[in-house]
Amino acid sequence: MGNQTIFFRNQPRIVATSTIAGPKECEGIIGRYVETALSDDMYGESTYEKAECKMLSTVIDGAIANAGLKRNEVDLIVSGDLLNQIISASFAARDFSVPFLGVYGACSTMAESLAVAAAFIDGGHIRRAVAATASHFASAERQYRYPLELGCTRPPQAQWTVTAAGGALISAEGDGVRITSATLGKVVDFGVTDVNNMGAAMAPAACDTILAHFRGGKEEPEAYDLIVTGDLGALGSRILKDLTWEKGLDISANHVDCGEIIYNVIEDEFQGGSGAGCSAVVLNSYLFNKLMGGSFKRILFVATGALLSTVSSGQGESIPCIAHAVTLER
Amino acid sequence: MGNQTIFFRNQPRIVATSTIAGPKECEGIIGRYVETALSDDMYGESTYEKAECKMLSTVIDGAIANAGLKRNEVDLIVSGDLLNQIISASFAARDFSVPFLGVYGACSTMAESLAVAAAFIDGGHIRRAVAATASHFASAERQYRYPLELGCTRPPQAQWTVTAAGGALISAEGDGVRITSATLGKVVDFGVTDVNNMGAAMAPAACDTILAHFRGGKEEPEAYDLIVTGDLGALGSRILKDLTWEKGLDISANHVDCGEIIYNVIEDEFQGGSGAGCSAVVLNSYLFNKLMGGSFKRILFVATGALLSTVSSGQGESIPCIAHAVTLER
Repeated sequence: MGNQTIFFRNQPRIVATSTIAGPKECEGIIGRYVETALSDDMYGESTYEKAECKMLSTVIDGAIANAGLKRNEVDLIVSGDLLNQIISASFAARDFSVPFLGVYGACSTMAESLAVAAAFIDGGHIRRAVAATASHFASAERQYRYPLELGCTRPPQAQWTVTAAGGALISAEGDGVRITSATLGKVVDFGVTDVNNMGAAMAPAACDTILAHFRGGKEEPEAYDLIVTGDLGALGSRILKDLTWEKGLDISANHVDCGEIIYNVIEDEFQGGSGAGCSAVVLNSYLFNKLMGGSFKRILFVATGALLSTVSSGQGESIPCIAHAVTLER
Repeated sequence: MGNQTIFFRNQPRIVATSTIAGPKECEGIIGRYVETALSDDMYGESTYEKAECKMLSTVIDGAIANAGLKRNEVDLIVSGDLLNQIISASFAARDFSVPFLGVYGACSTMAESLAVAAAFIDGGHIRRAVAATASHFASAERQYRYPLELGCTRPPQAQWTVTAAGGALISAEGDGVRITSATLGKVVDFGVTDVNNMGAAMAPAACDTILAHFRGGKEEPEAYDLIVTGDLGALGSRILKDLTWEKGLDISANHVDCGEIIYNVIEDEFQGGSGAGCSAVVLNSYLFNKLMGGSFKRILFVATGALLSTVSSGQGESIPCIAHAVTLER
């Protein structure tokens, strides 16, 4: 592995997780693994933003409780989300009297927060942290796209922002899924300007980080049961396989994308799911379950983020993207 | 010190810094210490946002060059800013082929990025990182307040967002200012809803973190030459002194606020400066200079952030705030 990869000598571990997802999301594969299935994506709140914030609070509290801990036994919350000024994370953290580090990596947040939390724990600075993130279809549409009431037609390359949250309790000790390395990504921009085609924009960033991870040559993709990207979607996933193959790395046998598998694609989702909550809910429900159960022994979790804003796109900028990877072992 | 405080055993050090500031800012005390004094706050760009991004790129590159290094000798950039989706930081990072962690702590970003970078270095995960942030008066007004063209009257409790950027090159070795501890803050909300009175909103967060830092009782405020807050402004600084005094901690003898000292307050700034660039430019120019020169031996740098967004304020929420502290020693 190249020098972008950090190895965690003390192998911090995910000892518990918590997840929540909306009704549409629970129709798919994660419906059987998610901890809290919402019947109403307003979650009893008056605005979409407050619903997203409450989902995030729920999984932070859930991860702490599922680890058999109390809030005051946690040293740090690392979290972020897609909304302006990461208000979901900041306002969720307000409910907890726990030190907070806000991060912004768009849809790469789950991997970024895991890497940051693991680094603090591995260095012996803290003992326990929660890494969590969320997204909500309606708050994301309101902020990044058009008012839902307009009923805009979605192009076929579009994805559907997942309404879900996922949180992981990471500890210096205990039984769980070990975080053995993190490959921190660089910002990569291939000049894509179509804000409806996030998969094409993010695939080069995923490729860059995956290549950096395997560059050292000590490992082959086959050393992993799965190489899981966050929310490239069906098209982005195909682009990633092509890009890595062109660079001499064949990941096609064990690559899967959370965005591609989260929905039973029937109509509006087109390329699948996206959003920070997409990879967060798949990792912390389905993948964590399979790792703990022994079905998977080792996965590379590569969450991807598109670092655009409406202002940057409005000013004619292309979409810079990033991907962070963490190795999870059982 | 309480358990919110992390001690860095290997004492990562700031070996070089770089700063840039607008014409208005350079009229004040930092004018004599800043590396690049802009005569035009557009910095040759076509939009305020692009100018802010370019300022950030300049100080990241400057910190690397001033340390006698090349870009490829840096392992990590930790950065964030005030704009939606931290576009200044993300787009600046695009120019560097260096791993990037985006953080969001509003005006607390300089302290947050120093703490995160120091933790990665102290844990032996990386050798060198840049921590940097920026803000721009005009891009902040556009995003958080009113169009400049409206010419809105500012209330007397308002502050003025600083047009400036500052970056620090932190290394595992070399001669410099040592980062010996970090006290990571909790989100504190005293129910302030006046978006023009950030000092009042942020002072309780600064108080909470400073109390957490001194709680262990092993040290008195006198152990520090300065206890420097980020951008509370004149009013916020007075509130902080009152709040800490009420809790039995007297910091009045050596407390100073970057926002209070940055301008020669004459007219529009009222309570002084604010913005992520405020504490970043004061720390990385004036304070770094005085630490390296031996005038100060030990300072507690406490950057404060108001974690609001226009959406949260529009939905009737109060302003949650946070403060992170780092101990800097020479």
